[in-house]
Amino acid sequence: MQVQTQYEKAIKTKYPEQVVIAIARDDHGKANPVTLGWTMIASGKPPMMAIAVAAKHYSIGCIRHSRSFTLVFPSAEMAEAALFFGSHSGRDVDKIASCECKTQPAAEIDSLLLSDAVANFECTLESETQAGDHIIFVGKVVTSHVNTEPKKRLYTTAPGHKLGPVS
Amino acid sequence: MQVQTQYEKAIKTKYPEQVVIAIARDDHGKANPVTLGWTMIASGKPPMMAIAVAAKHYSIGCIRHSRSFTLVFPSAEMAEAALFFGSHSGRDVDKIASCECKTQPAAEIDSLLLSDAVANFECTLESETQAGDHIIFVGKVVTSHVNTEPKKRLYTTAPGHKLGPVS
Repeated sequence: MQVQTQYEKAIKTKYPEQVVIAIARDDHGKANPVTLGWTMIASGKPPMMAIAVAAKHYSIGCIRHSRSFTLVFPSAEMAEAALFFGSHSGRDVDKIASCECKTQPAAEIDSLLLSDAVANFECTLESETQAGDHIIFVGKVVTSHVNTEPKKRLYTTAPGHKLGPVS
Repeated sequence: MQVQTQYEKAIKTKYPEQVVIAIARDDHGKANPVTLGWTMIASGKPPMMAIAVAAKHYSIGCIRHSRSFTLVFPSAEMAEAALFFGSHSGRDVDKIASCECKTQPAAEIDSLLLSDAVANFECTLESETQAGDHIIFVGKVVTSHVNTEPKKRLYTTAPGHKLGPVS
């Protein structure tokens, strides 16, 4: 049976929640990654993916500047990098240079891939929509990449940024 | 290391993927549920949720008519109902009447809650955006409900509509 409650309590039932990393270059050419839980596939044909990014985040300007982004499915062993990317701002640090993530150049957009991820999707910006305190960006997937080794995806498994694989 | 591949292959790394059910009334007053994997939170303050619904689905007209929808987190034991709601059209059947799902009236919108779910969020329509072959609807959460008993959420765990809990 359902009982009415506060949103803040009800939304705690959401776990596990997928984790992605979106990467776009700023106007100095610096590739800026941000960790996000609010993401979904948005279209099948053509394939599109959506991300919701906090309106105050440095990534907003990067995605608008690049008009493209890499959407990364990080692997379970990338929890430390995901936490770092999600808790620091590209205004203050070069997040890619500050971590030991291996990268590769993207093939069709001016961005990076994360080599140890499960998969990387290169997206060109299709649209943006304001939604409350976030901006929804929809990207069209123009190229896809997977890891040569099988990897498990990373999830937030419980409140307080508990990250890990699920089964 | 990443290797380029087809989207259809790369996207198979997405599992487990969360499952939600969106419910909106059509212009005859029939509450029509649809099962969706493409959903995300879209704003924190105010809380908003986004769903991507195939443009040809009956639910499109229901959501536009109601200008609101219930977003349901089904529980792991609701796999059968979720499969039924996702594989039949409201054009042909009354999906709620055809299944044994317990329902309750929504509190602030003209819709239903699913009693055995993990949680139900009542949303008023904020915006819609076309994305390829889908429509992204953003709803503002106006009221939330949780189950009086602890329940596990339902996920698609593998291709071919394999549904179940994760841990």
